[in-house]
Amino acid sequence: MTEFTSEEISSLEKRYKANLINSVTGYKSANLIGSISENSISNLAVFNSILHIGSSPALIGFVLRPLTVERHTYANIKSSQFYTVNQIHSGIIEQAHQTSARYATEVSEFGKTGLNEEYVKHISAPFVKESKVQIACKYVNEYEIKENGCLLMIGQIEMLRVQEKLIQADGWVDHMAANTASILGLDGYAEGKLINRFAYARPDEPIKVL
Amino acid sequence: MTEFTSEEISSLEKRYKANLINSVTGYKSANLIGSISENSISNLAVFNSILHIGSSPALIGFVLRPLTVERHTYANIKSSQFYTVNQIHSGIIEQAHQTSARYATEVSEFGKTGLNEEYVKHISAPFVKESKVQIACKYVNEYEIKENGCLLMIGQIEMLRVQEKLIQADGWVDHMAANTASILGLDGYAEGKLINRFAYARPDEPIKVL
Repeated sequence: MTEFTSEEISSLEKRYKANLINSVTGYKSANLIGSISENSISNLAVFNSILHIGSSPALIGFVLRPLTVERHTYANIKSSQFYTVNQIHSGIIEQAHQTSARYATEVSEFGKTGLNEEYVKHISAPFVKESKVQIACKYVNEYEIKENGCLLMIGQIEMLRVQEKLIQADGWVDHMAANTASILGLDGYAEGKLINRFAYARPDEPIKVL
Repeated sequence: MTEFTSEEISSLEKRYKANLINSVTGYKSANLIGSISENSISNLAVFNSILHIGSSPALIGFVLRPLTVERHTYANIKSSQFYTVNQIHSGIIEQAHQTSARYATEVSEFGKTGLNEEYVKHISAPFVKESKVQIACKYVNEYEIKENGCLLMIGQIEMLRVQEKLIQADGWVDHMAANTASILGLDGYAEGKLINRFAYARPDEPIKVL
């Protein structure tokens, strides 16, 4: 094993450290957050920190980097209260990654990447038409992580839109059939292959495959 | 597309809803958190919410469900200040899932699953010897998510232990070579296959493959 102490980590070259620390935790979710400004300029940004918070009520979270520079996604969520979380699949990973470029406020990443906006009733934020799993959220709260100024944003799921064939009989979404991507570190995009689903685990009973 | 409004989600059958809401966000990280009690009883629990928080300082987070029942991981972290985050790979997914069974406080999931404890100097919590990527964390802070009582736990990386061959020249950890698993929903375990790594994105420049 190669070992790094906290002192050794601190003194690593900046880019090496960012790659190492961003990749050690394993596979991360790959989603595009869609939002719209008060001036009706749409915005799209790749996020790898979408997090399940709870099912009843249905809440999800994501981590926003510190507000030391202009964060369009944050400003749009605060002004409109709505945002969408759109699945990245293997067919759109280049467009998804391109949304991380620093475009000016008045530029829409939809237009620049060729991904298409889709609007539905009662949800002001744009969905990504190409995504096979789409979530609309309403802003609920934010928590500042004081240790580094990041924000944990909490949203309630207002609407779910999932390709019909992807939903299995027990509600589980088949991300293999959707070619859903995951993110590794800052810049890697992967596809997945299911090994197994397991039944609810109980003490001293052997694991059962579903 | 199959659409669910927030009202429709609320009224879904409980298990269907849990599967749906836990799986919509895509692939999740798959890790085992190791800890030890004041009475020297080790504990191991599967988590799919490990989250990158920052690289300088190196911080990671995870979500703990509400403290309405006894949470051994939480109690151990609060008493000892240390915990480990250990990569789940395809060879140990059954053992990893089995740690989610409700064992009594005095029972160690290490003993019950056959996974091995490994201790190193200055870190009181046990690592999982079988894991190829191991992180030791020191408790830093916790944030209560008031909307449902979950806790976001923040830890500073005190030590990283990674199989030497997995670390690429730029610091990126090769999780394909490690057979790292990811988690889908509550009970699915998947393997990944890298599609591409992309260079830093810039406005109006074509995406480059690394």
